[in-house]
Amino acid sequence: MGATLEEHLVATRKGRYDSYLAFLRIPSISALPQHAEDCRRAAQWLADALTEAGLEHAEVAETGGRPVVYADWLHAPDAPTVLVYGHYDVQPVDPLELWTSPPFEPIIVGDRLLARGAADDKGHVHAHVMAAEALLTTRGALPVNVKYVFEGEEESGSENLDRWLAANAKRLAADVVIISDTGFFEGNRPAITIGLRGLMYAQIDVVGTPVDVHSGGYGGVVENPVNALAQIIAALKGPDGRIRIPGFYDNVVALTEAERAAIAALPFDEEAFRQRLGVPALVGEVGYSVLERKGARPTLDVNGIWGGFMGEGSKTIIPAHAHAKVSCRLVTAQDPARIFEAFRAYVEEIAPPGVTTTVRQLGGGRPSLTPQDHPATQAAARALEATFGQAPVYIREGGSIPVCASFDSILGLPVVLLGFSQPDEHAHAPNEWIDLNNYETGIRMFARMWDELAVLPR
Amino acid sequence: MGATLEEHLVATRKGRYDSYLAFLRIPSISALPQHAEDCRRAAQWLADALTEAGLEHAEVAETGGRPVVYADWLHAPDAPTVLVYGHYDVQPVDPLELWTSPPFEPIIVGDRLLARGAADDKGHVHAHVMAAEALLTTRGALPVNVKYVFEGEEESGSENLDRWLAANAKRLAADVVIISDTGFFEGNRPAITIGLRGLMYAQIDVVGTPVDVHSGGYGGVVENPVNALAQIIAALKGPDGRIRIPGFYDNVVALTEAERAAIAALPFDEEAFRQRLGVPALVGEVGYSVLERKGARPTLDVNGIWGGFMGEGSKTIIPAHAHAKVSCRLVTAQDPARIFEAFRAYVEEIAPPGVTTTVRQLGGGRPSLTPQDHPATQAAARALEATFGQAPVYIREGGSIPVCASFDSILGLPVVLLGFSQPDEHAHAPNEWIDLNNYETGIRMFARMWDELAVLPR
Repeated sequence: MGATLEEHLVATRKGRYDSYLAFLRIPSISALPQHAEDCRRAAQWLADALTEAGLEHAEVAETGGRPVVYADWLHAPDAPTVLVYGHYDVQPVDPLELWTSPPFEPIIVGDRLLARGAADDKGHVHAHVMAAEALLTTRGALPVNVKYVFEGEEESGSENLDRWLAANAKRLAADVVIISDTGFFEGNRPAITIGLRGLMYAQIDVVGTPVDVHSGGYGGVVENPVNALAQIIAALKGPDGRIRIPGFYDNVVALTEAERAAIAALPFDEEAFRQRLGVPALVGEVGYSVLERKGARPTLDVNGIWGGFMGEGSKTIIPAHAHAKVSCRLVTAQDPARIFEAFRAYVEEIAPPGVTTTVRQLGGGRPSLTPQDHPATQAAARALEATFGQAPVYIREGGSIPVCASFDSILGLPVVLLGFSQPDEHAHAPNEWIDLNNYETGIRMFARMWDELAVLPR
Repeated sequence: MGATLEEHLVATRKGRYDSYLAFLRIPSISALPQHAEDCRRAAQWLADALTEAGLEHAEVAETGGRPVVYADWLHAPDAPTVLVYGHYDVQPVDPLELWTSPPFEPIIVGDRLLARGAADDKGHVHAHVMAAEALLTTRGALPVNVKYVFEGEEESGSENLDRWLAANAKRLAADVVIISDTGFFEGNRPAITIGLRGLMYAQIDVVGTPVDVHSGGYGGVVENPVNALAQIIAALKGPDGRIRIPGFYDNVVALTEAERAAIAALPFDEEAFRQRLGVPALVGEVGYSVLERKGARPTLDVNGIWGGFMGEGSKTIIPAHAHAKVSCRLVTAQDPARIFEAFRAYVEEIAPPGVTTTVRQLGGGRPSLTPQDHPATQAAARALEATFGQAPVYIREGGSIPVCASFDSILGLPVVLLGFSQPDEHAHAPNEWIDLNNYETGIRMFARMWDELAVLPR
């Protein structure tokens, strides 16, 4: 008799790490045009890894942007078909000087693997490939049919994915979607994410004089684009933390008393959370708890701002132009396109005279909520408890996975959000890391999840 | 008989340009530490040029920062002594990409010489050296005693000059100071600047989380340093253009009706000015004309702002920190130290909780007003009219020459502000230029000014 799944995973650990690290070494930053070729390289690497794991029809599929990687295994005629989603692209790495080690030279320190993408989302993607490899090697088969869709534009707005999904709807037919791009709750407590926020991402450009002018010679007579931009940004939110864009809250479905009670019942230590974040105080919209504000309420944040002289010392100019990237996290029925229009109209309305202000959209994705009592969600709960030894909590996450809504609207499929990264893993920040125990147990959990799904009544 | 001054200047024109261009090629940016050696090189170049012109005791004098260049000619025992001030340091050059030619590779296009410092202030400094050279060559003497003080820190706050002036007060004894670091009025109309604004320059630093965090995971619960900074900046000025810092206007001496009438009488085409600036509208403090706001009223401008993601595309973070350089132009009796304290106190008061906000001063200088009817001012008016063919107007300039107040307070000397650059010469901006006709006539004007001062009743 061959090895058990566990024996196999123990025996192949070193090769698995080599493979994981090789994947992390490819700087597949989708937001930066200069990394387009790296994204393509990561896609090809992943397609090869899927084939090597025993999966079939591995393909680097063109989308018009960064490619989608597809593979499947469809030899379980009596079992359900699962569509697995993850992404092989990663966030940019700046500010680079804050990384304790180079972001694309992964290193293992104790139980932690540090690298850009270690958690978000290459760790989950790689764990899926390894779970399939282990099952196919030890059993010669998967308990369910699986179709893998690994995207390359998740961190830059998923511009081409919806079109690709629609064009491939027939080939993607399935019973359920497993999206693995979420994490655990505070204290590394297993969690299933049942809510995700949407996103509206925009840039505001304010232009004054054609070139910087002397702040002495012209101060007092021309509008300063930075002052104007600050004024615009300040007017977007009130002192109560409420967003002032007219109509912004129109499609926000209020939390029910039951939902608020469920959130309040989560084991959450607000003071420990504040200390770990390293801020003097937690702040936000008046009338909502930290967890409600973090997962179930919309937000508005400036992601970056720049204009004028940023060097050492003092340069006395009125900058010619100023810029800000502004994004909103959206909830329930808020629509990114409508929110952008409201945002644009409001910014144009409040923009001061004397400068030219323009607003353009850089990205967007709809929010989503998935039912907690769906059989697939409950199968995931059993898989988590069987492998991590603790029943999961059900949470609303603040982040956005726009494709989540697309699977529902384009393919008509229920979605389970099943990931295992730690809540403080520095996704999108310097020194991203993953707990290797979570990664290892996560592989076993995915394998168990297929077993759980295989025995569901159809 | 030897050549006349004019014959000499015509005959030596090419060599003069070679010398001027060599001076402009030295990137003496005082605000940037990496150019410290270049500043020293420019100082030595200037000391050598002064000696070559026939001036004496040329010295690169240590100040603790960028050196002062001193030289004199003191062989006119019956004539007054003039102290000439200019500066050999220049502004930084970014944004470099907006320069049509490299800032330290001066080129002549038609009547214009383009280079950083061509107008502010190397053009004036060089014209002074050339005027002395022409007089000493053609007459063997200057009509007055002259002491030259050329500073190397004017563009970075003149931190060490006051101390150096005080330490050298005896050696600097004079009857009048000529500061050549100002320009003409609109339309290249000869002008004598009788008012200069002061300066308070500060930096605001806002710090949130120790590293950037995911705007999905933490949006709604932590204060965003950029949003906080925008809120602070927006609160510094009201919609009426008035600065909201408590006590800010306490020491502003109101314009008299006569002063307002004199400003209103200046030949100023507001629409042409707006068009040349290239802005949709001129804006500023309610209740004051453009020229009043530009020269006789205090201002507040952001000179630069930065924080978070500034690249192409969309990165979804809450930045860890945000920064702004903010400066105020000051008038009449406003004191930079008091204004900074009021600024700091107000910013700290309005800074939102959830972030740590600090304020530090980067520079400052007092405003100054000089009497229009002083005999030296009237001598300058005659020198301008005799050489440029048009009587000067008397203006208040918006820029700051902090040393102007120092000459009064430390050395007890009257000051005449006598320069000849064009009002739109792009000082502090890309593509700084000087009209070579102004430079050439300026040399003759300085020589004439010494003749005018020599015959004043003592």
